[in-house]
Amino acid sequence: MDAIVGRLVIAAQGRYLEDYAVGQKFRSGPLRIDKERIKLFGAEFDPQPFHLDEEAARDTIFGGLVASGWHTAAVTMRLLVESDLKPAGGIVGAGADEFRWPRPVRPGDELRTESEVLEVRPSRSRPHQGLIKVRTTTLNQNDEAVQIIVANLVVPRRPMQDGHQSE
Amino acid sequence: MDAIVGRLVIAAQGRYLEDYAVGQKFRSGPLRIDKERIKLFGAEFDPQPFHLDEEAARDTIFGGLVASGWHTAAVTMRLLVESDLKPAGGIVGAGADEFRWPRPVRPGDELRTESEVLEVRPSRSRPHQGLIKVRTTTLNQNDEAVQIIVANLVVPRRPMQDGHQSE
Repeated sequence: MDAIVGRLVIAAQGRYLEDYAVGQKFRSGPLRIDKERIKLFGAEFDPQPFHLDEEAARDTIFGGLVASGWHTAAVTMRLLVESDLKPAGGIVGAGADEFRWPRPVRPGDELRTESEVLEVRPSRSRPHQGLIKVRTTTLNQNDEAVQIIVANLVVPRRPMQDGHQSE
Repeated sequence: MDAIVGRLVIAAQGRYLEDYAVGQKFRSGPLRIDKERIKLFGAEFDPQPFHLDEEAARDTIFGGLVASGWHTAAVTMRLLVESDLKPAGGIVGAGADEFRWPRPVRPGDELRTESEVLEVRPSRSRPHQGLIKVRTTTLNQNDEAVQIIVANLVVPRRPMQDGHQSE
């Protein structure tokens, strides 16, 4: 397929399992995490002093206000959805093989993601889909990793056309 | 320590590493996940059709509106904070050894958590803290697991008093 046409097709319908290959990389643009959103997320989902209030956060293990790790994870998902990863059928995670937060996110940090495809395999039990294993590193404005996740994503296989597998 | 006094002390200051033992279990009360919150969370953090709109969700892999897995994870955190797990210094995750979503959360589901301590160990490099490994299963109203996470939490050791380790 012509490269430009190929890109337009992917933009419209997303990538099928056959469009992924080990070593492919995808990036996202940055998103700034502001103090008020950190506190609101904390109040709703992770009401602990270091996510709620600068004063109270000072005497904790973090020494100041930090985003909930789940806020970091949610923002990472937003960035992934906006990245060029774009599986047909959406980003559907079956789970993660690795998941950690090497350092916290602080107010004003600008986060972006770098993803790399580590594995591509058809499903044994479901012939219409497969799995890709993708490592996504979330980085702050100093290029320090704030989250690393190795996730398994469910991706549909390219539909058959005219009785044979299309390419 | 007297059992009732012990409970009051834990309620006030939380548990230190010495208060945890393999096999301990902690539960949380339920929290209902409503349709509008699913859509708002999706719009902010996971803008994909199956998290945004019932009609659009019908033709996806989920066959209907479901919560973002990160919404499920965030709600699980809320339930954990409210449970009796209560480490002194707060629930601080270093990362997870296992993390998966066996089934999606749908509008109206009522989630609760069951946690079990799998491992308790002092830190080698940081004498004032340790790690506990905790498996938390998030269950819906039909007792089906919607999320399983095995997380490593940083927990402070009991402070020394009068020159010896208190018990």
